[in-house]
Amino acid sequence: MGIHVARFKAGEESQWGWVRQEEVVPIPGRYASLAEFLGEGAVRARELAASGQGKALPLSQVELLAPVTAPCNVVCQGQNYRSHMLEVGQDPDAKKFNQFFRKASSALTSSRGDIVKPSRVSMLDYEIELGIVIGRPITGPVRVTRDRLHEFAAGIVICNDVSARDIQLAEGQWYKSKSFRTFCPVGPYVYLLDPEDNAKLMNLRLVLSVNEEVRQDSNTGEMIFPPEETLSELSGIMDLFPGDLLLTGTPRGVAAGYNAPKSAKWVRKLITRFLSDQELTQLVLKMQARNTAYLKAGDVVRASIFSPDGAIHLGEQESRIVSS
Amino acid sequence: MGIHVARFKAGEESQWGWVRQEEVVPIPGRYASLAEFLGEGAVRARELAASGQGKALPLSQVELLAPVTAPCNVVCQGQNYRSHMLEVGQDPDAKKFNQFFRKASSALTSSRGDIVKPSRVSMLDYEIELGIVIGRPITGPVRVTRDRLHEFAAGIVICNDVSARDIQLAEGQWYKSKSFRTFCPVGPYVYLLDPEDNAKLMNLRLVLSVNEEVRQDSNTGEMIFPPEETLSELSGIMDLFPGDLLLTGTPRGVAAGYNAPKSAKWVRKLITRFLSDQELTQLVLKMQARNTAYLKAGDVVRASIFSPDGAIHLGEQESRIVSS
Repeated sequence: MGIHVARFKAGEESQWGWVRQEEVVPIPGRYASLAEFLGEGAVRARELAASGQGKALPLSQVELLAPVTAPCNVVCQGQNYRSHMLEVGQDPDAKKFNQFFRKASSALTSSRGDIVKPSRVSMLDYEIELGIVIGRPITGPVRVTRDRLHEFAAGIVICNDVSARDIQLAEGQWYKSKSFRTFCPVGPYVYLLDPEDNAKLMNLRLVLSVNEEVRQDSNTGEMIFPPEETLSELSGIMDLFPGDLLLTGTPRGVAAGYNAPKSAKWVRKLITRFLSDQELTQLVLKMQARNTAYLKAGDVVRASIFSPDGAIHLGEQESRIVSS
Repeated sequence: MGIHVARFKAGEESQWGWVRQEEVVPIPGRYASLAEFLGEGAVRARELAASGQGKALPLSQVELLAPVTAPCNVVCQGQNYRSHMLEVGQDPDAKKFNQFFRKASSALTSSRGDIVKPSRVSMLDYEIELGIVIGRPITGPVRVTRDRLHEFAAGIVICNDVSARDIQLAEGQWYKSKSFRTFCPVGPYVYLLDPEDNAKLMNLRLVLSVNEEVRQDSNTGEMIFPPEETLSELSGIMDLFPGDLLLTGTPRGVAAGYNAPKSAKWVRKLITRFLSDQELTQLVLKMQARNTAYLKAGDVVRASIFSPDGAIHLGEQESRIVSS
C-alpha cells in the first residue's frame, strides 16, 4: 500500500512529512520542490513508514502547503466525464478525442488557502479533479498500461480546477480563465502509489461541497480517457518530468451546469443554428448571470477524494473565496 | 543599440556568443539555460560588444542551438493580427479580448533543425511570430508601458508557431495541435533590447517563405494588442520569469488561409447557421484536404524578422520538414 505525504511549515522553513491519521512525521532532508522530493525524499518517506518510527507532530499544529510546487507543467484534460459534458450541453458521443489545455503553475495554492476572485471575474466556478503527479521523465513515446501506471505516476492528489466561466465562454481558449493566481488548490496530501494501487485509481469517489451543500459527488470510474491512455498520448506529443501535474477532468455538478439550458436536443440545435457564435455567447452569458450557484466572497469550498475501501484518502481541501 | 547573442556548439559543450556579421565571439562562462545566461552572461556579452574584443569563430563553423531553453513558460497570443483573422474567416471587429494559449516548451527547437511532421497530422502549418523573452520576474500586477518595455523584455527572437490544423480545428483547444516536439523553431539569435529599441518593436518586418515562395510578409505594427498591453494583462493573471517566452501572434499568409472560404460575410453566416459545429468542422476539414499549401516532407521553411533601418536583424530560420 502507498503512503500519504505532505509539505508543511512548523517553523520558518518548509519541509516534507509522512502523514498517518492526524499526525505528520517529518522526513529528514530538505527538498525545495516536489521534483526534488520525489527522488531521495520519497525513498526516505517509505523507509520511515515501514519502520513506523519518527517523532510526530499533530497536523493541527502545522501549516499545510501545496504539495505540488511551481514551476512545473500543469496539463489538463477537458470534458473527460460524460456527466459533465451533458450538464454543459455537450454531446459525449460526438467527442472522439482527448482534449488538452494548460493551467499556469503559478495558480497552484495550498489546500487551506484562499481562492482570490479577481474583480474582473463574475462567474467563478469550481471543478474537483483527480491530479496525477508525474514520477519519471517522459521524453518520447511510451505505451503506458494500467498495471504499469505507478512507473510513470508517482502519486495522486486532489485538485480544484477553478475557472472563470465568463472569460472561458467569451474567449474560447481556456488558458486565461483557468490560470489566475490561486485558481488551483492542490493537496493536502500526495498519495505515493504502489503497484497494487493501480487498479484502485478508477474507483475513487470525488466529493465537493460549497457551504456544506454537496455539489459534486462522482467516481473516477466514469472517466472517458483513463490516465494510462492519456499519458500514452501525451508522451507522443510533449516531455513530462517528475513533479509535473496532470488534471484528469471534472464530473457533473459545476456551477455552470446549474442553469444550463435543459431543453431538448433539437431545440438546442435550432437555437445554435439561428444565432451567430457571438449572439449565442451573449445569450448564455445573460442566462448565466442569473445563476446563483457561482462562487462569491465568503463561500467555503470543501473537496475530498478517497477509495471506498478506505485505503486511500487524499484528505480534505478547505478553501475560502475572497475578493481581490 | 542592443546586441545579438546566440547559443551554439563548437565542440562538446554548448556555449553562448555575441554575434557580429558572420561571426560569433564566445562569451566567457557556462550558462545551462537562457534564464542563467540572462543574469551574468548578458552583462558579459554587452561588455564584450562594447570592447569589440574577443576571438571570433565563423558562424558557418558552429552549430546553432535554440537560444530559448526548456523548461520555460511559452505563452502565446491567438489572433493578434487583423489580416490573419480575416484570412481564417474571423471578424477582427468582434474580438475585444487578448486571447492566450500555451505551447509545450519541449516543442522548442533550433532554427536550423527539422520540423517533424507526426504521422497522425495531415494539415501542417507555419506561423511566423515575434517572440518576446521575459527579462525579470513578474509575480504580481504591473503596468508595462512602451517606453519601459526593455525593463520586462530582455530580448526578441524569431519564432515559428507550427500548428497541426486538423487537430486544432477538430479539438477546439489549441494546446495539443501546437505542442508536438519540434513545433517551435526559435532563433537563431536573441536580440537583447536597449531602451532606445522599445520604439522599434512595432516596426519590424516579418517574412516567411516555403521553398522560396514568400507566404507571409507583414509588419509587427499591425498587432492588435502590442507587447506592453499583453504583459500588463498577463502580470495580473500569472507569474513570468526570466527566460520565459511570449509569442505575439502571426500575420496573414498561413497555409490554412490559402483555401479558406472567400464567400461574402452573409453567405458564411448562413452556412454557419444551418450546419452544426460538427458538420461545419467536417466541411472545413474536407475543403482543407484539397489545400496544397500545407507543409509536406522535404519542404524548406525560411523565416526572418528585421527592422527596416537595418539596426535589428534577428537572423534567418531554415527548417526542413521531415516525416516521423
